[in-house]
Amino acid sequence: RVTRHASRIPRGEREMNVSILGTYNSKFGKLEGKSIYDLIIEAGKGAIEDSGLNPADIDAIYVGNFSSGGFNGQEHLAPVAIDIHRDLRFKPVTKVEDACASSSAAVYEGVYSILAGRYKNVLVIGAEKMTELKTRDMMRVLGMASYCPTEGSKGETFPGLFAKFATGYRDHYGYTDEQMRKWLAMSAAKAYKNAKSNPLAHMPSDLTWKDILNLPPEKNVQIAGLFHLHDCSLVSDGSAAVVLATTDRAKSMKGKVVEFAGIGHTTDYLELSKRENYTLKAGKMAISKALDEAGLTINDINVAEVHDCFTITEILILEAMGLAKDGEGWKLLEDEQSMIYPGGKLPVNLSGGLKAKGHPVGATGVSMHVLIAKQLMGEAIGIQAEGAEIGLTFNIGGSGASNLASVLRRVK
Amino acid sequence: RVTRHASRIPRGEREMNVSILGTYNSKFGKLEGKSIYDLIIEAGKGAIEDSGLNPADIDAIYVGNFSSGGFNGQEHLAPVAIDIHRDLRFKPVTKVEDACASSSAAVYEGVYSILAGRYKNVLVIGAEKMTELKTRDMMRVLGMASYCPTEGSKGETFPGLFAKFATGYRDHYGYTDEQMRKWLAMSAAKAYKNAKSNPLAHMPSDLTWKDILNLPPEKNVQIAGLFHLHDCSLVSDGSAAVVLATTDRAKSMKGKVVEFAGIGHTTDYLELSKRENYTLKAGKMAISKALDEAGLTINDINVAEVHDCFTITEILILEAMGLAKDGEGWKLLEDEQSMIYPGGKLPVNLSGGLKAKGHPVGATGVSMHVLIAKQLMGEAIGIQAEGAEIGLTFNIGGSGASNLASVLRRVK
Repeated sequence: RVTRHASRIPRGEREMNVSILGTYNSKFGKLEGKSIYDLIIEAGKGAIEDSGLNPADIDAIYVGNFSSGGFNGQEHLAPVAIDIHRDLRFKPVTKVEDACASSSAAVYEGVYSILAGRYKNVLVIGAEKMTELKTRDMMRVLGMASYCPTEGSKGETFPGLFAKFATGYRDHYGYTDEQMRKWLAMSAAKAYKNAKSNPLAHMPSDLTWKDILNLPPEKNVQIAGLFHLHDCSLVSDGSAAVVLATTDRAKSMKGKVVEFAGIGHTTDYLELSKRENYTLKAGKMAISKALDEAGLTINDINVAEVHDCFTITEILILEAMGLAKDGEGWKLLEDEQSMIYPGGKLPVNLSGGLKAKGHPVGATGVSMHVLIAKQLMGEAIGIQAEGAEIGLTFNIGGSGASNLASVLRRVK
Repeated sequence: RVTRHASRIPRGEREMNVSILGTYNSKFGKLEGKSIYDLIIEAGKGAIEDSGLNPADIDAIYVGNFSSGGFNGQEHLAPVAIDIHRDLRFKPVTKVEDACASSSAAVYEGVYSILAGRYKNVLVIGAEKMTELKTRDMMRVLGMASYCPTEGSKGETFPGLFAKFATGYRDHYGYTDEQMRKWLAMSAAKAYKNAKSNPLAHMPSDLTWKDILNLPPEKNVQIAGLFHLHDCSLVSDGSAAVVLATTDRAKSMKGKVVEFAGIGHTTDYLELSKRENYTLKAGKMAISKALDEAGLTINDINVAEVHDCFTITEILILEAMGLAKDGEGWKLLEDEQSMIYPGGKLPVNLSGGLKAKGHPVGATGVSMHVLIAKQLMGEAIGIQAEGAEIGLTFNIGGSGASNLASVLRRVK
């Protein structure tokens, strides 16, 4: 293995000194017979085993989950995690929620608790079981992540909210519906194709962007505004987990080590109409903060997993990352030789992303960290970004209200 | 003011170096016309003003809340907090949930984030709006804090679960129902009387323990097992907030400063039947950990706010604190000259506790920290424990699954 960047990377001002030393990602999909309890235990057990630690070595557990109350009738979910192993009884456990970014937020609490010197080894689990409810009820629960007085409780849905970003983009830059639909389909097609190499993905597919555009209306029903079925991420069950420790400690163990180089966390108004426009302003800030803290620029990133909850979101995120000017993110999708495709300089969502890997909302943040960590370890789940040393995760909660970005770096 | 203990207090092994420099506690009760959004903004604004900081100085916000999804149809609650002031836009916000201990858990995340060097000034808000739902629905939401597959979804309620502690106590020690009912009524009567001095309390009352026992059945209906209406804490709306910073920073500002001396956080099985007996084993461990970390014993504590969600719980907590042998906590209630009454060496729940101050579940943990901080500042909300320098909070989630204890100390 060649370390592409290590010698020339300036370390950020603040040394994070926290690393990932164990990972686990469950299959994503409609997982018949697996409860939210099962998913938590599967992921936690898997990550502890992968870390090489004993369960008794885990000092604390954070659980990221959006709405087990709404989806599964179970609040106070975190204590379930001590059922992973008898040696976890009496350990501190805490649930963290930031909508679809819940488990990135849980990861950050894990990181900070270690930086605080509070704990040595921390298990962070993200999990969601979404498919127990009928579609209508499931949509109502998801809608509670919007600003309910004027959005969720008025029948507004997330496809509807993000469709405003799509029409806003079209109108602001003067694009046609045909152009938009083509670019959106290209985002979906990239995701489907990448997911074909990911054994854990919910919905890999051979559909090309032309196939998607040519589907009969009943096979790609209109959902909201410019969005059809194939513009929306999936409703999935799944879980993922990481074990965190100080980098010094992680390096002393056998196995590969991926460190947190930078974290950015920003919040915009929950109510979409309170913001000035339909860009991901706070998201751009979060990504910049994470890069600044790492002492890096986007040019240093070798691989990224980002929050393509809808096809338009990937385009907006490519712009927020600084890979394209505002209004030109679609160019990276239209050119299938561009940096964001497999083999490119900065492949985005090699896993298939939320669109095709699946989006069990409370699991998504930890899963992004698992996927990037595995990329940097050279053990990708699916397509490997060859020689990747530095990666980015970017996770959104709500219609761009919560924004959580991490820069990870291979250090051993 | 005389510093009673400061010179002889051994500092704990680990210096926490995080302090409370601003507090706010809303009125608790059925607050007509105040939404969960209003409650968050009221508390956050109040604590920032009290801290002497500008809103722009706040680096991050943690929101402790149990189930705004269940009670108010709003998940993803944390971003609402940036509506407190325009200068809070784009700051990181995170919701933390551990049932009725949610906002103690949020406080701890705030403490750790400062210890981590991540943030300088952190706002922690606890809030719950419980009275929008009808009683039956409200009870269903609360029940989701139990282990639902065998408890909540089977119709088990928290009065029912804690009633098992009461009958277990009776049976294990061979007490009679009459003895139990008297001691339980004494816990309620102490709470009601203390609450009479607390202007923010939900239900102050002149009822003595004899009054309670002599109430006609229709005015003190049986709820579950040994529990009647007056054995149960209140269903309240309310919020509370603290501003945290390093002790060094807090000391440099004008105003009084209360430091975290120790924190204990433990978790027992969510499912009550998985535990060996009906004691608060994990709670006792949490209190011991907090004291150990502070380098103190229970004899050093001058004032405490503890989780009397039901009358039996206060008795069990007095034992878990080590103030009485197991099976003898009631003696401290029966002797109205004992240390736990106003004027005693260690008054417990001078505010009126959850029983009479009220229990807006997600606000309770922060409120306990506010109440103890104000005691140690000599500015008690209600009855002042004269000269108190060191205090304890103890907050429970579920039927004793989540246990969070803090030792606070006046340092300026």
